[in-house]
Amino acid sequence: MVVGFEKAVSATKSVVTSAKKAPTTLSSDRVINFARGDPTMYESYWRQMGEKCTIVISGHNLMSYFSNAGHFCWFLMPELDRAIRRLHCVVGNAVVDDDRYIVVGNGSTQLFQAVLYALSSSYDPDTEPLSVVAAAPFYSSYPEETEFLRSGLYKWAGDAYSFDKDGAYIEVVTSPNNPDGAIREAVVNRDGGKLIHDLAYYWPQYTPITGKADNDIMLFTFSKATGHAGSRIGWAIVKDIEVATKMVKFMELSSIGVSKESQLRAAKILEVISDDCQNSAPDKGENFFEYGQRLMSDRWEKLREVVKRNGVFSLPKYPQDYCNFIGKYTDPSPAFAWLKSKDGLNCDNLLRELKIVTRGGTNFGVDSNYTRISMLSPDEEFNLLLERLSAIKGTIINGNN
Amino acid sequence: MVVGFEKAVSATKSVVTSAKKAPTTLSSDRVINFARGDPTMYESYWRQMGEKCTIVISGHNLMSYFSNAGHFCWFLMPELDRAIRRLHCVVGNAVVDDDRYIVVGNGSTQLFQAVLYALSSSYDPDTEPLSVVAAAPFYSSYPEETEFLRSGLYKWAGDAYSFDKDGAYIEVVTSPNNPDGAIREAVVNRDGGKLIHDLAYYWPQYTPITGKADNDIMLFTFSKATGHAGSRIGWAIVKDIEVATKMVKFMELSSIGVSKESQLRAAKILEVISDDCQNSAPDKGENFFEYGQRLMSDRWEKLREVVKRNGVFSLPKYPQDYCNFIGKYTDPSPAFAWLKSKDGLNCDNLLRELKIVTRGGTNFGVDSNYTRISMLSPDEEFNLLLERLSAIKGTIINGNN
Repeated sequence: MVVGFEKAVSATKSVVTSAKKAPTTLSSDRVINFARGDPTMYESYWRQMGEKCTIVISGHNLMSYFSNAGHFCWFLMPELDRAIRRLHCVVGNAVVDDDRYIVVGNGSTQLFQAVLYALSSSYDPDTEPLSVVAAAPFYSSYPEETEFLRSGLYKWAGDAYSFDKDGAYIEVVTSPNNPDGAIREAVVNRDGGKLIHDLAYYWPQYTPITGKADNDIMLFTFSKATGHAGSRIGWAIVKDIEVATKMVKFMELSSIGVSKESQLRAAKILEVISDDCQNSAPDKGENFFEYGQRLMSDRWEKLREVVKRNGVFSLPKYPQDYCNFIGKYTDPSPAFAWLKSKDGLNCDNLLRELKIVTRGGTNFGVDSNYTRISMLSPDEEFNLLLERLSAIKGTIINGNN
Repeated sequence: MVVGFEKAVSATKSVVTSAKKAPTTLSSDRVINFARGDPTMYESYWRQMGEKCTIVISGHNLMSYFSNAGHFCWFLMPELDRAIRRLHCVVGNAVVDDDRYIVVGNGSTQLFQAVLYALSSSYDPDTEPLSVVAAAPFYSSYPEETEFLRSGLYKWAGDAYSFDKDGAYIEVVTSPNNPDGAIREAVVNRDGGKLIHDLAYYWPQYTPITGKADNDIMLFTFSKATGHAGSRIGWAIVKDIEVATKMVKFMELSSIGVSKESQLRAAKILEVISDDCQNSAPDKGENFFEYGQRLMSDRWEKLREVVKRNGVFSLPKYPQDYCNFIGKYTDPSPAFAWLKSKDGLNCDNLLRELKIVTRGGTNFGVDSNYTRISMLSPDEEFNLLLERLSAIKGTIINGNN
């Protein structure tokens, strides 16, 4: 899933004091925003693909509300259903047997809310709202998405580690986790618990694929899988038809389904990726995931080098694992870097001195000595990040923090 | 706005007793569904348009979450903003001056909920939820869309005619009204009231355009304007930037914006309509609204003829008015026929005997001797409706009701 959308901070608190001493590290004065997870770095890959992924839609196409009138998810286009199932089979990251139900949504954001509704709407209206928890650090939008309508069906109950209420609850398990990239399992593990597995980042470019996920409710999103955030396509793989049917009801009431233009395009792009992954020609190029994995590994190597050199921050360490898809041991290379200040300083403030906007730990239920940095920016911005982080030692020495 | 999505009833209670006596009127045994407002009848128009409305999208296009990062509605594509404003200027059905804010949504369904949030989220959390009312008969989905999450911010309070609580409230004014096609104004008119004008059907094919609507919050939808229901595009025109900004916040939390593929396509199609409307060439064909107005008038004439002949039902009468867009007096030809049984019988049951599925009056807050019939079906189905309605006298004479 994706981060929220605060505006880029247009002015920092003060001019960085080291600027005059190290002009090359601040070749541009502009504020760069790493608080958001806009996956624009994949654009160059898709540009190279030329017309392979192009779709053409005439004025009279896709006009009806219905995509598959007899199907429980009547707005899901059959070609997208097929493309999703095929891609998961090719990558080996999720079980998509015939008895699993796919629900499409306007991004996994809408599907997350559809699941909350599906799991809570059959509870007695006189009981308390169902508690929703996630282990800290948790994705910063879960609390607000759960709370903003003040639903009587469910409510945000904070960090799963400190949750101690009896009775029914929902735990969101994000794996790899946003913000810290950790591979996770449920932590509450009590009777009456329902789990939502947010697997937005369980793709080979971010983490070794060690097996097929087989959870009750799994969420994926086109934006993180392929970088097509503007399409607003997510999908859920659901075991229980009753839960899936209630999610469809939510989607009807919330938006009467999902854009067909986007569904058609997502189907096309996912099929092209599957084709490329299954292509065994000797002259075949890198497939999308190989490209992404190489790019992300390279970025992580560079970031670790800079962080190690400046000595101000630390980054999580991840165990190498065998990736069934890539066919060798790979290092995790998460979509976000979870930076910790070694001296307990406020990470966000520190970085804003360098005109780097990040999302501080308090948004994720932990302290401000943590911050989250998107690793999915365009090359130019990522290189500017590296440059500015290299200069941070000077900033601190010169005070202001 | 659009109707809900009950499944077509796959079996009627009994075989119509008149079937054997009038075989030509029941040439097909299949159930036909007029409960939904799927506007598929416009498909043939768009097919005629050939490639004029075709869009082509490459794999690397439209990837970012952002459409216009500095704009208050950062996910609205500027080309769609322009196309919407231009079309309203050309048709003359709404004020879209520069100080009016446009918010795009996944259909007007999502925007309706965004407005509820925008108007209620600043109220004291300790006060009661804000009452939401509409004059009966009201659009059947308003109650459920307002209630399904049991929000503490707002709640459905029923028919505006019988609303007598003091304090703040929201009234939805649907004009022309769904289901009955009436031109409406607010009915509560008390201090503390906020109005949402749902103008989904304020287009020349449904009603004479008598002036530019200039309400605080106006909702429109691509599905009813042009028939492109599968695209899930709606828009709001809002006077108050604070309300518009809160609606954008809702859209962020609900679905992180709106499909760009659909926005691009909607922009293209709206521009083609505007071009055609402004084309003054002597050999120009009918523009979309002229076509729609002719088709709808023709259908209404046929329906009125059948209803008059069988004597079982009545239909509302609408005053003719001068349509500024068409340039002459026109009869209203609403998207739904609001049928009333003269004998006080249950309209739905009566029609289901003829394998015609409609949406009964109780869904709209009135009695079951009313029912709503979509006028937007494909020709074949509409003709079957006329045939079966012609045969209904025989059914009633033969009992079963």
